Amino acid sequence: MATSQRNHTSPRYIAIAELVRESIASQQLGPHALVPSERELAEQHGVSRMTARQALSLLESEGVVYRNPPRGTFVAEPRVRFHIGSFSEEVSRLGKHPDARLLWAEEQTPTPAVRGALHLADDARVHVFHRLRTVDDVPFALETTYLPADLTPGILDDPAPGSLWAVLRERFGITLTRSTAVLESIVLDELSSTQLGVRAGAAGTLLTRRTEDAAGRCVEYARDIYRADRAAFEVSEILRD
Amino acid sequence: MATSQRNHTSPRYIAIAELVRESIASQQLGPHALVPSERELAEQHGVSRMTARQALSLLESEGVVYRNPPRGTFVAEPRVRFHIGSFSEEVSRLGKHPDARLLWAEEQTPTPAVRGALHLADDARVHVFHRLRTVDDVPFALETTYLPADLTPGILDDPAPGSLWAVLRERFGITLTRSTAVLESIVLDELSSTQLGVRAGAAGTLLTRRTEDAAGRCVEYARDIYRADRAAFEVSEILRD
Repeated sequence: MATSQRNHTSPRYIAIAELVRESIASQQLGPHALVPSERELAEQHGVSRMTARQALSLLESEGVVYRNPPRGTFVAEPRVRFHIGSFSEEVSRLGKHPDARLLWAEEQTPTPAVRGALHLADDARVHVFHRLRTVDDVPFALETTYLPADLTPGILDDPAPGSLWAVLRERFGITLTRSTAVLESIVLDELSSTQLGVRAGAAGTLLTRRTEDAAGRCVEYARDIYRADRAAFEVSEILRD
Repeated sequence: MATSQRNHTSPRYIAIAELVRESIASQQLGPHALVPSERELAEQHGVSRMTARQALSLLESEGVVYRNPPRGTFVAEPRVRFHIGSFSEEVSRLGKHPDARLLWAEEQTPTPAVRGALHLADDARVHVFHRLRTVDDVPFALETTYLPADLTPGILDDPAPGSLWAVLRERFGITLTRSTAVLESIVLDELSSTQLGVRAGAAGTLLTRRTEDAAGRCVEYARDIYRADRAAFEVSEILRD
């Protein structure tokens, strides 16, 4: 690493984007407020239109603002911050209203990947739920949840309107102890984006989750697709120093 | 939830996508192997070309395959699975070679958001590093790291070629105990995508992280942008039942 590189300084558009981000964070600009235009930002900060445009593009790419031409650029709604856990419980914790619309539910022979994730025997079956999850009636996520059929007899006859975790606990007496998830950023395909009410090609988050009970059995495997413009995930790690 | 909805079954394209995903997972199809074409999938599974195309689109949107017309569709490289922590340490743990290219480093007056994240006094300063992180020489992430200037005197005179966490520990005697991060899926803007070597509009992951030491002080704040096609994040949560 050459010492001369110490003299490189941060690009101007990053500093301007940061100032707009600050105005939003400090509530000077609330959701759906008009953000200063390219021309206004250029004049305020004494930079070129190109630099102001780069600042706004950066904020748009992060989902901090959205464009609505020709009206202008506006502050986006803040994302809902989820922990890795039950959708219903996370949304309720934030004082919002979670809901689920059942798209389909069926008993299946699991694919090898699903069987492996749930540590099932070769002849085991799974109950699968595919649901559209909403927050205050806004579509947020498409959930596909796999439950071992042996552990959840009869669940398809009376599918729960909300939390499947609550059903596992209350109806089947299962104690959930640990959830492990992998988060990946994806581009939404046409069908998912239609169901989630966003344009095709918008960003999404694919959350793949395994949940274990007190005996260390894997009792749930889920593949959930979240709208990226509405959801963020907060995680914490204890470090062994 | 109407009982009639129980009869809804899963769409055919999802099942076909799952079978291709399985072939890849079981190594029948390794990275950069040719995936069966739309026509081949349609014939194999007795479905329309449209259904086969939907299956391949779904896999492309998830980053499982990539298209290279007119040659065909190919298996993507598996994503590297990061925990929330030091880039260098996560990559080394996986037996790969991490590296950092310094783009700029400077002392700054923190913006209110950075000052708030680090719990700094009004007159405090920060040392900022902006680096391109690579894995086996492939660009993976753009890191912007903020360190309290009081805790890291002289760090700009001799910036580390690799892990800033190692510098905090070894040079400044700081014990790192806990890291909290927010993960958001974003669309890469033009400049970030150029630096990361992907097309503009590709998916990215924005990781915002605070790291604390044994005394509960926040000793690092970072805003990192990862390529979504190469990075996934594994997290775990203990549940209070």
